[in-house]
Amino acid sequence: MRTSLFSRRTIRQGAVSAVGSAKIKLLLSCCILFTFIALAGRTASFMGWKQYSASLARSSLPGKGYTLLINTWKRNDLLKQSISHYASCPGLDSVHIVWSEPDPPSESLINFLNRVIKLNSKDGRKIELKFDINREDSLNNRFKEIKDLKTDVVFSIDDDIIFPCTTVEFAFSVWQSAPDAMVGFVPRVHWLDKSKGNEDKYIYSGWWSVWWTGTYSMILSKAAFFHKKYLSMYTYEMPSSIREYVTKSRNCEDIAMSFLVANATGAPPIWVKGNIFEIGSTGISSLGGHTEKRTECVNRFVAEYERMPLVSTTVKAVDSRFCWFW
Amino acid sequence: MRTSLFSRRTIRQGAVSAVGSAKIKLLLSCCILFTFIALAGRTASFMGWKQYSASLARSSLPGKGYTLLINTWKRNDLLKQSISHYASCPGLDSVHIVWSEPDPPSESLINFLNRVIKLNSKDGRKIELKFDINREDSLNNRFKEIKDLKTDVVFSIDDDIIFPCTTVEFAFSVWQSAPDAMVGFVPRVHWLDKSKGNEDKYIYSGWWSVWWTGTYSMILSKAAFFHKKYLSMYTYEMPSSIREYVTKSRNCEDIAMSFLVANATGAPPIWVKGNIFEIGSTGISSLGGHTEKRTECVNRFVAEYERMPLVSTTVKAVDSRFCWFW
Repeated sequence: MRTSLFSRRTIRQGAVSAVGSAKIKLLLSCCILFTFIALAGRTASFMGWKQYSASLARSSLPGKGYTLLINTWKRNDLLKQSISHYASCPGLDSVHIVWSEPDPPSESLINFLNRVIKLNSKDGRKIELKFDINREDSLNNRFKEIKDLKTDVVFSIDDDIIFPCTTVEFAFSVWQSAPDAMVGFVPRVHWLDKSKGNEDKYIYSGWWSVWWTGTYSMILSKAAFFHKKYLSMYTYEMPSSIREYVTKSRNCEDIAMSFLVANATGAPPIWVKGNIFEIGSTGISSLGGHTEKRTECVNRFVAEYERMPLVSTTVKAVDSRFCWFW
Repeated sequence: MRTSLFSRRTIRQGAVSAVGSAKIKLLLSCCILFTFIALAGRTASFMGWKQYSASLARSSLPGKGYTLLINTWKRNDLLKQSISHYASCPGLDSVHIVWSEPDPPSESLINFLNRVIKLNSKDGRKIELKFDINREDSLNNRFKEIKDLKTDVVFSIDDDIIFPCTTVEFAFSVWQSAPDAMVGFVPRVHWLDKSKGNEDKYIYSGWWSVWWTGTYSMILSKAAFFHKKYLSMYTYEMPSSIREYVTKSRNCEDIAMSFLVANATGAPPIWVKGNIFEIGSTGISSLGGHTEKRTECVNRFVAEYERMPLVSTTVKAVDSRFCWFW
């Protein structure tokens, strides 16, 4: 009632969060404008990019970059493709490969990767490449503490996902403003299972639920930045029963990490909008009964923490150079 | 070149960052879809909202809320209107009014505000109202340390700006994920002044420059969340020459705070998209020579810090329930 009294000057701030019928009107009436906006936008984003780069060069990405923490299993071609790409990203400081196969990495693989790394290590920049060889094949391996890690943050990634460097470094800059949060590209959500009546049972929901509601409470570690401190917390402070459960069920290490960070911060993670390019085809997420297994994990972890630490949010970090409604 | 080899499944992640000509095509071809999307969206956002509220009630806004830190000067009507509104926001814990007028607040004003506060303090919630009476009229007053502050964060606001409660609490949730950052609604940017040749001289730019480039490096304290620790840092740790300059020039306390936070974190602030309702008409920003004065301040502060601490970014936090391109 009161707001109707205010003089509305959205254009000065430019932030038009179109809601309900206003949204419909806005969206429809903007159709014609799009052509002009888009044409202007090309210049705008180009200008923005030039000047932004200038600013970046001056003051952003302070000190250290990030470590690529990549999990792989018997897919050397994907690993080669993936590392060849990420080695070209300017903010990359080192590459840490989590290797859990019975046989050690082959000479040819090591030589190939070293060549790629060397190729991208010019201009005084020296990328470090390390294999972390594990006897036991456990999903907990991907979150083992890394000794003498040069950066504060890791970019945890599966071997079958590629993001353009600009997208990766954009997410890195979001993490710099929120160094305690998980910052990444793959959101998932939990819901209270109302069918279960009084007991606090939860349901794990995938991408379509996030897409439909705009709500999420987890960022999966298949594509996320997080502080290195969470690696040692996962290995030494998190209840060992959770690690055992992850090893046994061969699933949910990413949900366990989401619980750990949410429990430590009491805050939600941050979802960053970005293109994803999948270069592999199958993973455990494509196997049958996946959602049921994940729901089981969520409820098991709630029991371990004796509460639901995950915090839901609808925040999405977007690049304002590519965003039309201010 | 490599990316062309990848199978692109943006729909699963839904994140389409439309760039260049692709953007134009996308925007144009989406015109027809908008009606359906918008119609679906009303349900989606409604669903999302219901479930999100449920999650919020369960786990978000942990413990304390925020303190409204409001700066006012001889505009009692605006102050009444503003506090009447913000007192209705569920996350509000207390109200702290920075009063720098020669005369103390009138009985009638105090009574009115106490009534408003009392009206909104039902259901076991007790909002605190405090006046901070200052003899000296200095812009530094708004950042004086607040003893026995119950919340970790303040929402610093001018008396002539209103944001809907949902927008305020959305920004609060962003701050919870980035508690060291300045999180707010009014972005500004600095550019290197190339006309000055070799010397590092900078230009302060207003909203239109941010709108055009999508880039910003400051969030103004006229509408921003920041940690209470920055209040004592501003008063006791920041060079007194900066406070003196602010008092003398009767301007730039907000730029000084942006420098302070950027210098402490080495990271950019976070711009949150939100509607702004201006209920007042004039402020110092509408006076002549404003931009020149602000540019002077930026260069003066750079000299004080012996470097440019501000970090540029293009990150914008939006509410994914009201965002159409995933």
